[in-house]
Amino acid sequence: MTEALKRTLGTCYYPEHWPEEIWEADARRMKDTGLTWVRVGEFSWSRLEPVPGDLHFEWLDRAIDILGKAGLKVVLGTPTATPPRWMIDKHPDMVAVDAHGNPRKFGSRRHYCFSHEGYKQESDRIVKLLAERYGRNPYVAAWQTDNEYGCHDTILSYSDAARTAFRLWLRDHYGTIEALNRAWGNVFWSMEYRSFEEIDLPNLTVTEPNPSHTLAFRRFSSDQVAVFNKRQVETIRAHSSAPISHNYMGRITDFDHFKVGDDLEIATWDSYPLGFLEDRVGAAPDHQRTYARQGDPDFQAFHHDLYRAVGKGRWWVMEQQPGPVNWAPYNPAPTKGMMRLWAWEAYAHGAEAVCYFRWRQAPFAQEQMHAGMLRPDNADAPALQEAKQVAEELRSAPDVSSPQAPVALIFDYDADFAWAAQPHGAGLSYFQLVFDVYKALRKLGLSIDILRPETRDFTGYKIVAAPGLIHMPEDLKRALSGCSAQVLLGPRTGARDKNMVIPVPLPPDIPGLDVTVTRVESLRPDMPLALKKSGTAAGCFRGYREELEGAADIVLELENGEPAAFSNGHMTYVGGWCDEEGWLHLLRDLCKSARVQTFEVSGGVRCRDTDGTRIWTNYGSDPADTPAGRIEAAGVLFENL
Amino acid sequence: MTEALKRTLGTCYYPEHWPEEIWEADARRMKDTGLTWVRVGEFSWSRLEPVPGDLHFEWLDRAIDILGKAGLKVVLGTPTATPPRWMIDKHPDMVAVDAHGNPRKFGSRRHYCFSHEGYKQESDRIVKLLAERYGRNPYVAAWQTDNEYGCHDTILSYSDAARTAFRLWLRDHYGTIEALNRAWGNVFWSMEYRSFEEIDLPNLTVTEPNPSHTLAFRRFSSDQVAVFNKRQVETIRAHSSAPISHNYMGRITDFDHFKVGDDLEIATWDSYPLGFLEDRVGAAPDHQRTYARQGDPDFQAFHHDLYRAVGKGRWWVMEQQPGPVNWAPYNPAPTKGMMRLWAWEAYAHGAEAVCYFRWRQAPFAQEQMHAGMLRPDNADAPALQEAKQVAEELRSAPDVSSPQAPVALIFDYDADFAWAAQPHGAGLSYFQLVFDVYKALRKLGLSIDILRPETRDFTGYKIVAAPGLIHMPEDLKRALSGCSAQVLLGPRTGARDKNMVIPVPLPPDIPGLDVTVTRVESLRPDMPLALKKSGTAAGCFRGYREELEGAADIVLELENGEPAAFSNGHMTYVGGWCDEEGWLHLLRDLCKSARVQTFEVSGGVRCRDTDGTRIWTNYGSDPADTPAGRIEAAGVLFENL
Amino acid sequence: MTEALKRTLGTCYYPEHWPEEIWEADARRMKDTGLTWVRVGEFSWSRLEPVPGDLHFEWLDRAIDILGKAGLKVVLGTPTATPPRWMIDKHPDMVAVDAHGNPRKFGSRRHYCFSHEGYKQESDRIVKLLAERYGRNPYVAAWQTDNEYGCHDTILSYSDAARTAFRLWLRDHYGTIEALNRAWGNVFWSMEYRSFEEIDLPNLTVTEPNPSHTLAFRRFSSDQVAVFNKRQVETIRAHSSAPISHNYMGRITDFDHFKVGDDLEIATWDSYPLGFLEDRVGAAPDHQRTYARQGDPDFQAFHHDLYRAVGKGRWWVMEQQPGPVNWAPYNPAPTKGMMRLWAWEAYAHGAEAVCYFRWRQAPFAQEQMHAGMLRPDNADAPALQEAKQVAEELRSAPDVSSPQAPVALIFDYDADFAWAAQPHGAGLSYFQLVFDVYKALRKLGLSIDILRPETRDFTGYKIVAAPGLIHMPEDLKRALSGCSAQVLLGPRTGARDKNMVIPVPLPPDIPGLDVTVTRVESLRPDMPLALKKSGTAAGCFRGYREELEGAADIVLELENGEPAAFSNGHMTYVGGWCDEEGWLHLLRDLCKSARVQTFEVSGGVRCRDTDGTRIWTNYGSDPADTPAGRIEAAGVLFENL
Ligand SMILES: [Zn+2]
Ligand SMILES: [Zn+2]
Ligand SMILES: [Zn+2]
Repeated sequence: MTEALKRTLGTCYYPEHWPEEIWEADARRMKDTGLTWVRVGEFSWSRLEPVPGDLHFEWLDRAIDILGKAGLKVVLGTPTATPPRWMIDKHPDMVAVDAHGNPRKFGSRRHYCFSHEGYKQESDRIVKLLAERYGRNPYVAAWQTDNEYGCHDTILSYSDAARTAFRLWLRDHYGTIEALNRAWGNVFWSMEYRSFEEIDLPNLTVTEPNPSHTLAFRRFSSDQVAVFNKRQVETIRAHSSAPISHNYMGRITDFDHFKVGDDLEIATWDSYPLGFLEDRVGAAPDHQRTYARQGDPDFQAFHHDLYRAVGKGRWWVMEQQPGPVNWAPYNPAPTKGMMRLWAWEAYAHGAEAVCYFRWRQAPFAQEQMHAGMLRPDNADAPALQEAKQVAEELRSAPDVSSPQAPVALIFDYDADFAWAAQPHGAGLSYFQLVFDVYKALRKLGLSIDILRPETRDFTGYKIVAAPGLIHMPEDLKRALSGCSAQVLLGPRTGARDKNMVIPVPLPPDIPGLDVTVTRVESLRPDMPLALKKSGTAAGCFRGYREELEGAADIVLELENGEPAAFSNGHMTYVGGWCDEEGWLHLLRDLCKSARVQTFEVSGGVRCRDTDGTRIWTNYGSDPADTPAGRIEAAGVLFENL
Repeated sequence: MTEALKRTLGTCYYPEHWPEEIWEADARRMKDTGLTWVRVGEFSWSRLEPVPGDLHFEWLDRAIDILGKAGLKVVLGTPTATPPRWMIDKHPDMVAVDAHGNPRKFGSRRHYCFSHEGYKQESDRIVKLLAERYGRNPYVAAWQTDNEYGCHDTILSYSDAARTAFRLWLRDHYGTIEALNRAWGNVFWSMEYRSFEEIDLPNLTVTEPNPSHTLAFRRFSSDQVAVFNKRQVETIRAHSSAPISHNYMGRITDFDHFKVGDDLEIATWDSYPLGFLEDRVGAAPDHQRTYARQGDPDFQAFHHDLYRAVGKGRWWVMEQQPGPVNWAPYNPAPTKGMMRLWAWEAYAHGAEAVCYFRWRQAPFAQEQMHAGMLRPDNADAPALQEAKQVAEELRSAPDVSSPQAPVALIFDYDADFAWAAQPHGAGLSYFQLVFDVYKALRKLGLSIDILRPETRDFTGYKIVAAPGLIHMPEDLKRALSGCSAQVLLGPRTGARDKNMVIPVPLPPDIPGLDVTVTRVESLRPDMPLALKKSGTAAGCFRGYREELEGAADIVLELENGEPAAFSNGHMTYVGGWCDEEGWLHLLRDLCKSARVQTFEVSGGVRCRDTDGTRIWTNYGSDPADTPAGRIEAAGVLFENL
Repeated sequence: MTEALKRTLGTCYYPEHWPEEIWEADARRMKDTGLTWVRVGEFSWSRLEPVPGDLHFEWLDRAIDILGKAGLKVVLGTPTATPPRWMIDKHPDMVAVDAHGNPRKFGSRRHYCFSHEGYKQESDRIVKLLAERYGRNPYVAAWQTDNEYGCHDTILSYSDAARTAFRLWLRDHYGTIEALNRAWGNVFWSMEYRSFEEIDLPNLTVTEPNPSHTLAFRRFSSDQVAVFNKRQVETIRAHSSAPISHNYMGRITDFDHFKVGDDLEIATWDSYPLGFLEDRVGAAPDHQRTYARQGDPDFQAFHHDLYRAVGKGRWWVMEQQPGPVNWAPYNPAPTKGMMRLWAWEAYAHGAEAVCYFRWRQAPFAQEQMHAGMLRPDNADAPALQEAKQVAEELRSAPDVSSPQAPVALIFDYDADFAWAAQPHGAGLSYFQLVFDVYKALRKLGLSIDILRPETRDFTGYKIVAAPGLIHMPEDLKRALSGCSAQVLLGPRTGARDKNMVIPVPLPPDIPGLDVTVTRVESLRPDMPLALKKSGTAAGCFRGYREELEGAADIVLELENGEPAAFSNGHMTYVGGWCDEEGWLHLLRDLCKSARVQTFEVSGGVRCRDTDGTRIWTNYGSDPADTPAGRIEAAGVLFENL
């Protein structure tokens, strides 16, 4: 965990969008607002290089100089998410191709395929130019590579470049075509290949492709992002010692953020609580209505914890929603106070910085309806006022803090790829399963650390939850078996080997836990399987369910008497997808066994612990009572621990 | 307004579909039914020119002769909506291309791209041949260009021809690429172009294209229709003095009908009340069920008023639904009486003619399930009987009449393009907004004139409603400010400049009305914002809402106390999308201020005023009471004023 | 009807999926389970010919030998549903093309176009090799051509090969282009062709293509399947006297199974009661929930009766669901007992064999989640236990039996093509209509024979139902008129001629039945038209309805007094699509007239008569009482007749 760092604020600024005359006033106003950070440069390629090879860095020099001299620290973004139009003439085949075979044309952003070597060289070139010029600039205190990898569904590309690269990747990973055929079970339906050159991308097949094929393509696509990012990082690092980051997005699981994060000092993410509730949280309509102006009470927290892990402890919110956005199906305005609350939610989870996106609302182009800290007419927007309040509060606030939590939750991008390749039932996703468990834990008042799947040392955790880990390596099984925490496993734990094949012995095959999944079913959402009541606790399985056998203790049953979960005392395997009540039922018992104290928060109230302080937030529309006292709607409460 | 014209009836006839032996009997039967007009020729290209250059007009000569000699007036349609199959061999690239990049193939109709010069020359050629041959024909009393521009989503084409033409159009409109880049804000996301040749059509982009780009493409596409039509008009006019018309469709807003109408003497439209209720009115399911056999009570009226404006006072129903159609998701039969009612609704709005489509149901091809005035077996269909009744009634009826209404409602196709480019919230459309206001006005018993957005003289109107006029030129602002009517503005009035950029000062920026939209939000449909009750009047905003500030008088508030509408005494700005009750609430007050008398019609009853007569119609399933007496279901009532 | 055949069991086995070491144990275990049949070989092309021309039949020799020596009879499948990857290099254009114009790529199965001559020669070649090698093999007791024609929507292909073949087909069927233009009414919208070479496939047209065009393309596509299959059959027959079959799928109506069946000795089908209920039965959600673990109580029965007709009396279930499948939106596990019940349902309808798919669950590739009789770890799965029980029961069971039923129901694939070309109302399908009538008959306790539309001799039937027969040849009209059964006709009977044109005189134009459909409407599902009550019988028309006139007797009326059905004493024409209650209402009366005894089964209970035995099944979740006694949930009851 990082120590002795002050919590800070910042914003995202596009000097190229505004007359140079106002840059200095803008910089002063940022400083007066209490901001520390200002991110610039991303998306500016057509201004840096309007014509191939004709470079114009002078304006950026001046912008950085003005901002720096005003006392701000600059985060410099590489502009590779927006190659200029002339690049398409140089590399007509650099664009990604969608699953229907259509090239994804110029005219917005992210119009490149991660597998196109020509574009990767262009990326290296512009990054090198930036790194050389600003690597020692005293005001450039951090870097950002590209922007929001994966936004707009841009990881999977079905281009010729991707096909060629995929074949090489397969050769690297399987060695021989015989090994691949065997690993994938290509004998089924005579899908055997004679050479890697025969393998196509898994789109437009007559019916679904082999899930092993799909999974390999997803892994390949994920690796291409890591390679692309690493090239930028290495180029920057040759010239700069400032930390390098990337700004991830919410619920993008098409590439392994941990792998990308391995090459970066800091993870940042772009947090749009209202936009995300509308377009990706996946909540029921009444929940969406209830929290339309506040955002889901757990979605930000989940990503804060996730990106803290991706950043190996160091993380920021690089873009914080400052008012209505433009891109969701519906774009409501936040309740007054939420722009402050969201910042405190981030600090509660250990954020070093929270940067509002963006400084001033741009009156033109795609995001003209995206609020800023300033209105297009330069007047203060509500976000500016709330940011000022946060800045004021930060003066007397403690440093960045994120002590180890009592609960660990493993998140594995590769498992999400596998579930996506074979959800087995409509609408089932790994992300949703893990998030459901997260929400239940948080409703029990718990602070959570998210861990990457390579974790083997669970020292200090009282509970380790690893739901849905469809591929579980032997050494992870042993590590979990051997740790002293209460461990939650299932459903689908170890249900596939590395190549998406069902293992024998049948799953979960965990040392020390005698339970076997003998059959699996997915269920219509209107066919819940009730769990047997225990006191007031009840709940059900919904959507997915496994038939279990074994000699371990049955710790949860269906109402019909069939076993729902087994335990050996410290490892519990649950054979289904619980509803909220079901997870609470199960987790309460687990916490009791682990001697973890819980208290159930109500409605939109949540809390998280930092060193010495429990930070309460209220996403509800009404005041609420907490053990620490009354909390207003959209309020934040600090409780000394 | 047109004067001293008799109200007339007509039909659409395809002599080429029937043996020549029966043409004369058909003509006589039309005459006996009381019809005046018969439209022929459209869709007949393969019979006029079965092989390129091999012309066969003899059959058409004979058909026109027979019809004319029977006492019918012929409307001659140009056949350009259905180029024959051989045309595709001559011009393989003449077809439009859909947004996914697929050419839209031969095999139905409207298979051409408005930007294809080769096809436009073919169009000129066949029109010239027709005009030369029939321009002085005594029986050809009117012309129709093409058929239903825009039907089947045929305005926007992503073809090579369209791309080339779009670039020329942009050069014409922006002069320099720098001006375009500036006007569109292309610096955002490095979308700057170095030349017009770099600009592509705004489809298949990775995420949404620049709304300025989209809007320009929609304007271009609209202009292409006007150019195409004008070429036909000029060709005809060189040979004929008969009036020229085009038959528009319901709720097609992809091109500016006013611009096309400028080149024509008469606007006609094709009115399918039941088909449209199923496929484009956009009503709630219970409303659709209630009026499934009658049609929406306001949709026809709206278009009648709209096309009266497009026709500069002169307009017809060129195709009137005569029974079930074939093309809607569901195709119910009309309640007995509706074919008469629809005709009277048209006359109430000033129609010169109502022509039933079609004379005899064709037993073959795409529209074999489309009813006609005759059944396929030549027996009378119900429409024939009702047409006879109308013909009888017309004998003693007054002339065509459409006196100036007390209420004006501005309709702007360009605003619809802009809303479509950026609805901001799912499902929001300009057409729907204007139609909602229209419906509320009509429920208050009012007659309405629809005005084009170029109108600057509002003399004689007591109320001018201009909802949703997202781009409002300065001189229109001044004209509205200076007129003596009660003016209704908002939401989104003046929210964008001509290039789809947010203006500063912020909207609406109306002289004399001190109100500013400081923030905007779109809302899930299940999040209504209640308006403060006033007496029994209430209502809510739904879907879209603006935060307002200003020194003008607050004349409407939300229940939560926030301002919902401001007024300076004669101009009212409403900052949201009202539900029906909300519009009634607001408009009742406005009518009171304007001293316009209202009376609220109930259920499916509506009325409209002609000179000296108020014409009542009942779209309901039950008889109803009106101030003028009892009106039967599907009935028409004439009240002397 | 077939006689003196024992009812048998079998399974589907893929020796190429398993180590050769276990084949013998597998064979022994099959035999011990009581199985007679084992199907092998389909999908194995890449193992038979891993490299073009390099043939490896040795493993198949050994597998057949081992199975045969264990006492099993082998069904040998041709592997043409899965051409190996190298085939695509030889014939890159052999794949089908979807309606959007995208080639359907290699990577799963059925990746071929039925019109590609190159592929058809490859098919002939591999089939010949198999036939030569195994045509006299003593263990090969039956053949299967290909696998599941039409699965994954593979009948309609928009490839170049299909276009070329379609033109030839049209020339064969119409002779001259003038005849085609006339027959299709191409004068409408100037769609006339000058030669067959101008005709394209009916996809990607601007709006719907001519329904005559669509219907011709569907007939052509159907014929291509029959030709493809016949070439395999003739090749096999030259070398083998064993019966040849094909395994059809549930609710695939894209080709005429009767035509394919004409060339085969046995019809088999693949019965997946739970998968089908989720993805193709088309039932309401509550029905889907109720029977999620049992399957629709009538869907299997319908197909059993259908395929008995396709097989001219001889039919099997070639693939019987053995547990959860993998391919439906939701994949529940069957209630214990259903795998037995489904087998008995098949025997009740005259099945010679029921083969469970598959022997052992494959842990790899697309169907890894598809249950088998064995689990992937070789343990017994529930299906094995239930199969054993069936095998035990079969020892003392009578022979295969399917006596003529009292009720005949005509099913016409060509009618389904026509309805699909023009459903007239959203969601209306011929299959659904016939199935609705079937369900009602079965709820009245009746056994049913399905007849092909070429049937002219109805001797022995007391009721003949022919709903929805949109094209009815004159000799069928006469045959029905002249038969002694009660005949049920309508809606849409004879509504189109052979070329999809409305005939004059108007339909149904049945000799001896004076009724005419004067107008037709389709209705929103929420607009039922109530039938007049008769005792407790009521019901309604929903979705589709005809206006009727005539001198025949009105035997059913709408509540509003309009006629709903006419009869001449032995022929009844119903002018609408009844709901369940409506069909029961109508059919009860018809049965009374025909002196057919009915008894209404309740809930999920059904029965069917074999010679001497009525076999009862209970698809419900609770025990139920029948005239023959109590039947358990998922139970089977045998009643002596
Ligand atoms: Zn330069
Ligand atoms: Zn000629
Ligand atoms: Zn070999």
